[in-house]
Amino acid sequence: MANGGREALTPQAARSLVDSVDVFIFDCDGVIWKGDKLIEGVSEALHTLRSLGKKFVFLTNNSRKSRKQYAKKFSKLGMEINEDEIFTSSFAAAMYLKLNNFPTDKKVYVVGEEGIKEELKLVGYESIGGPEDGKKSIQLESSFFFDHDKSVGAVVVGLDQHFNYYKLQYANLCIRENPGCLFIATNRDSTGNLTSLQEWPGAGCMVSAVSCSVQKEPVVVGKPSTFLMDFLLERFRIDVSRMCMVGDRLDTDILFGHNAGCKTLLVLSGVTTLPALLDPSNSIHPDSYANDMSHFVQLLSQ
Amino acid sequence: MANGGREALTPQAARSLVDSVDVFIFDCDGVIWKGDKLIEGVSEALHTLRSLGKKFVFLTNNSRKSRKQYAKKFSKLGMEINEDEIFTSSFAAAMYLKLNNFPTDKKVYVVGEEGIKEELKLVGYESIGGPEDGKKSIQLESSFFFDHDKSVGAVVVGLDQHFNYYKLQYANLCIRENPGCLFIATNRDSTGNLTSLQEWPGAGCMVSAVSCSVQKEPVVVGKPSTFLMDFLLERFRIDVSRMCMVGDRLDTDILFGHNAGCKTLLVLSGVTTLPALLDPSNSIHPDSYANDMSHFVQLLSQ
Repeated sequence: MANGGREALTPQAARSLVDSVDVFIFDCDGVIWKGDKLIEGVSEALHTLRSLGKKFVFLTNNSRKSRKQYAKKFSKLGMEINEDEIFTSSFAAAMYLKLNNFPTDKKVYVVGEEGIKEELKLVGYESIGGPEDGKKSIQLESSFFFDHDKSVGAVVVGLDQHFNYYKLQYANLCIRENPGCLFIATNRDSTGNLTSLQEWPGAGCMVSAVSCSVQKEPVVVGKPSTFLMDFLLERFRIDVSRMCMVGDRLDTDILFGHNAGCKTLLVLSGVTTLPALLDPSNSIHPDSYANDMSHFVQLLSQ
Repeated sequence: MANGGREALTPQAARSLVDSVDVFIFDCDGVIWKGDKLIEGVSEALHTLRSLGKKFVFLTNNSRKSRKQYAKKFSKLGMEINEDEIFTSSFAAAMYLKLNNFPTDKKVYVVGEEGIKEELKLVGYESIGGPEDGKKSIQLESSFFFDHDKSVGAVVVGLDQHFNYYKLQYANLCIRENPGCLFIATNRDSTGNLTSLQEWPGAGCMVSAVSCSVQKEPVVVGKPSTFLMDFLLERFRIDVSRMCMVGDRLDTDILFGHNAGCKTLLVLSGVTTLPALLDPSNSIHPDSYANDMSHFVQLLSQ
């Protein structure tokens, strides 16, 4: 793009972008919706792009739901999106284990929500932890010994609204004491638009806590890691240069686009503000940016 | 020290160390006790050093208790230690606010335990959060708005066995939305001997989680920060070179000693193992090391 991400998209640049792209990869939180509310004009904007023959992928770092649960969410919001158009970081975690031949007689400890457990189950893995450990607590008393399951071979950490010290110590012990135990992060987003009214701490916070206790860095499977890109390339069998990542975050969405080698479009309807984008300290620049999806599509007819 | 921390202390080096030191600064977890159990021989070792005219300071990063509560703990374990010989990171947090003229009409939000709240109260500050927020939870639903107190002017984060997503978001909102709100960490220890049988995630984990969500680094008041050193120097009015920091952690205790300019003795009765000390990747070297306090004092009579 001519403006190198430092100027707003022009009508001409918008048309040129659409002409050069076959597949749009959309982030969800901050692009499609905020919490449980669609962002204004999104439905119509996507309809327009579909009518131009564009294909869609929805690629979210939010691991709270499974792909099936996300398809239901879209449907509830009045958009018919197929389950196999949706790629979540919870799915990525399950796929990572599968592709690395993680043995099915080992268990996975989950610091996260239902979405991760569901995706693990779908590929045949037994998981423990997750929501059921959200109500557990410990008492730091001298005689107390915190036991853990020695058959846990991987710990997956994602966004967890029921994060607590119990889960932190469970993850810590598995990673430190079970030989070869994998440490996988769905993503490291610091915050996210988890409700329509506010930003909330993201999975990165839970990942940082566990990472601090084990003094190790995790394998990240969600954006900006391009782990899922091979699945997308196989699905569409087109050149990555004819794909465009549309997202609201520089350090996940736009960086993913750069890492993957596709085009990038930032929308200002989520986490990133215009001052943050233009701040001299920011080193991640999208090819172009627009206020939101509706604005982007409106430019096409100007 | 001649051996530069890569060889065990010899009897001669032990005697030379004791001769050159007037004040021993002891870390507690891993040096004096593990959880609620005294480490073997500590009481006798300290008795010997006292009888040689040495003065003591107990300097702990553990913010769970106040100085008064620590004096009680010493007493319960059969050691009479005066409250004003004890310096905790919870005390350091309160002192930091006081020395920076933090206004008493502002509140402090605490991610941590009773010790922090008590020390804040002793210097006249009103705090909210802490243990009472440990049972609170939130539901990430679209219509939910998480409100916070706009009169919070500082967030203090320490070790918190009741850490949860509620506190994480509370701290996040105060730091992001209350103008000028301070972000103070008692310490950043990744783990600690909080019980006698196991290591547990330390305050560093909670600090990392909050730091990730606000995308800011905190002011650290506990070790390895030398913030409390001015208090010690005023208390003893001796040259810092005649003080020796005795600790079990390289990245807090020994680094504190280096930062402060005093002598350093590592004991292997806590977090740091001999292989970790001698590992080529370790760049923090104590002046000398011994197995534990008992071993150190035994060397004096050999």
